Amino acid sequence: MDRFRMIFQYFQSNSESVMNGICGLLTLAGIKMYTSIDFSCPCLPQYNMAYGLGIMFVPPIALFLCGLILNRQSLVMLEEWSRPQGRRKKDLAVIRYLCSSIMQRAMVAPAAWIIVTLLDGKCLICAFSSSMDPEKFVDFASASPVQVQQLLAKVPCKDEELMRNNTSRKAVSRYLRCWSQALGWSILLILIIAAFLARWLRPCFNQAALLQARHWSNYIDIEQKIFEETCCEHSRLFAHKCILHFFESMRQEIKLHSCSLSREGEG
Amino acid sequence: MDRFRMIFQYFQSNSESVMNGICGLLTLAGIKMYTSIDFSCPCLPQYNMAYGLGIMFVPPIALFLCGLILNRQSLVMLEEWSRPQGRRKKDLAVIRYLCSSIMQRAMVAPAAWIIVTLLDGKCLICAFSSSMDPEKFVDFASASPVQVQQLLAKVPCKDEELMRNNTSRKAVSRYLRCWSQALGWSILLILIIAAFLARWLRPCFNQAALLQARHWSNYIDIEQKIFEETCCEHSRLFAHKCILHFFESMRQEIKLHSCSLSREGEG
Amino acid sequence: MDRFRMIFQYFQSNSESVMNGICGLLTLAGIKMYTSIDFSCPCLPQYNMAYGLGIMFVPPIALFLCGLILNRQSLVMLEEWSRPQGRRKKDLAVIRYLCSSIMQRAMVAPAAWIIVTLLDGKCLICAFSSSMDPEKFVDFASASPVQVQQLLAKVPCKDEELMRNNTSRKAVSRYLRCWSQALGWSILLILIIAAFLARWLRPCFNQAALLQARHWSNYIDIEQKIFEETCCEHSRLFAHKCILHFFESMRQEIKLHSCSLSREGEG
Repeated sequence: MDRFRMIFQYFQSNSESVMNGICGLLTLAGIKMYTSIDFSCPCLPQYNMAYGLGIMFVPPIALFLCGLILNRQSLVMLEEWSRPQGRRKKDLAVIRYLCSSIMQRAMVAPAAWIIVTLLDGKCLICAFSSSMDPEKFVDFASASPVQVQQLLAKVPCKDEELMRNNTSRKAVSRYLRCWSQALGWSILLILIIAAFLARWLRPCFNQAALLQARHWSNYIDIEQKIFEETCCEHSRLFAHKCILHFFESMRQEIKLHSCSLSREGEG
Repeated sequence: MDRFRMIFQYFQSNSESVMNGICGLLTLAGIKMYTSIDFSCPCLPQYNMAYGLGIMFVPPIALFLCGLILNRQSLVMLEEWSRPQGRRKKDLAVIRYLCSSIMQRAMVAPAAWIIVTLLDGKCLICAFSSSMDPEKFVDFASASPVQVQQLLAKVPCKDEELMRNNTSRKAVSRYLRCWSQALGWSILLILIIAAFLARWLRPCFNQAALLQARHWSNYIDIEQKIFEETCCEHSRLFAHKCILHFFESMRQEIKLHSCSLSREGEG
Repeated sequence: MDRFRMIFQYFQSNSESVMNGICGLLTLAGIKMYTSIDFSCPCLPQYNMAYGLGIMFVPPIALFLCGLILNRQSLVMLEEWSRPQGRRKKDLAVIRYLCSSIMQRAMVAPAAWIIVTLLDGKCLICAFSSSMDPEKFVDFASASPVQVQQLLAKVPCKDEELMRNNTSRKAVSRYLRCWSQALGWSILLILIIAAFLARWLRPCFNQAALLQARHWSNYIDIEQKIFEETCCEHSRLFAHKCILHFFESMRQEIKLHSCSLSREGEG
């Protein structure tokens, strides 16, 4: 019994660890989705840019909003923000702490998506192959401008008959993938350095205030959970009382009925 | 025993979490079904549209109705709605709260199905390949209109001899898949933004009324469950009493029988 | 011990949930069986139809009868129907309620089998490929009628040398699978709509009568179970008494025997 109570208490007291878990699952789900969806560039000059950038930036927005929706702390924060001021005064530091922790967790999955697409490179090749400078690559320089535009738009499609075994296609593709991966690694490095500084430098400044804010945010969370549980407990007790009352009165009716039956039998 | 009681109480008090679980399972089952059923477009001009749109829209209707059927809250709501007015007055807010929560949960699986089919793109390619404008794609422009219609209808079938290694087939397929995925991501984004607004803006308005409605819906659910349990308990006690009575009278008969036997033996 | 008693009580009081579990297991077993059995069409004109329709309709009959056999409620219903009329009058509504609930549960597994075969499509292709109109498909139109019949019968066999890489074979197969899946989804949709109407409209009419019938069917079930248990208990006690009596008398005989032996020894 204690084992289950311990697990329950763990999930009750440690909203943060549950949130970390949800944040991790969301990140994995995003990456899994990217790898399982068949990404096929339309290879038409007017659609390429929109499709490539759409695949790169629309899902991160969806993932970011998902992260905000799934985070239980966001509800805690909103209720703390909109509650009437009672005896416990509202502390802006607590709300700020909650807000920053929600944002940090919601940013993980979108950042992972963008970095994965950049490291993979297909999206960037699809988006920017039309806007390359054709003079940099030998084969294209001879063709007419309209033809060049169409050829460049077909760079992301490997199976295209015109482009199969075309050296320039491979050169453009290599060039763009190189830029895409460079961009991806740079963003990853910058994010990790930022996380590192936030974690190592913050304790040197206002550690006490931070710990206090964290403690209070934790307190608000636990208060809400215990309130909900006590509500359930209360309504269960109330329902139990009502139903017992109903059955008591039914039993009395049955007794009266059987008494009258036995009297009839006597009579 | 306490362990089991705790688990039972968890499932008793938290109908909502059970419903969330059922809703998630239904969604996963739908996606699993889509991936395991062999989707094969008939590639006949007069059937393509019906088949593609049928696969896209008939299963969501089935999933939506399944979500309504499996949701225990729907029964709770119907009984609350049709119960005679006793001492507890009927609260429309509670019924509205229950109804909206049922609808929300029933919409998840169909929405997931439609988005998955759109992101996959096969259904849309099958449905709309015949209604493409053939002049956009080079190879088809030379053929006669009837032939073009037949060729366009065979776009979704990769193995078709006429179409294998046909560049235009791939172009039409890419173009339609691009539109399909764009549509899928747009719908996903719109749904997530709607969910986000519903979750973040609602607490700013009538949070207290919402919490009250939720509390009462919870109470009704618990009351029904305890009533059913008490009925079972009651009928078990009653049956126990009846059977004990039967055995008592049987024992007396046996005693009488053995007495008469022993008298016969004495006699 | 209390733990086990609770579990036993759960299974005792909730016969319905056990039946739901059995019904679900039977459905899963049916689907698992269909996927694990190697379905291979004979591809002979005179056997195809019988084989395809046999696989589609014989197992559902077996599953339906299995559902009736495994359902404990069917025994309860039969005994309620054939018991002598004592003080508790026989209620036709109870028997009707039991009968309908048994039928509903027994129908789930066969319906699932038929829908799975239709969505898979192999059975229907095997059954009806010979009766297709050959004029609809280009390749067959040139051959003689007997040859066409043989070719059509070989449509379900992919590996057949004549048919490998034959475009018309694939066209016939696609056409029939499209019809099969359309039929499967339609049946599924109709069943789900029927279940939905039964569940949502019934509470609006005679909910009280239904609840009463359900309560009494539950009572009869519990009464039978407690009767069986009490019988067991009773016969154990009786056997215990008999055996003790036997050992008592044996001990007395041994005493007498040893007395007589000692007397013989004394004598």
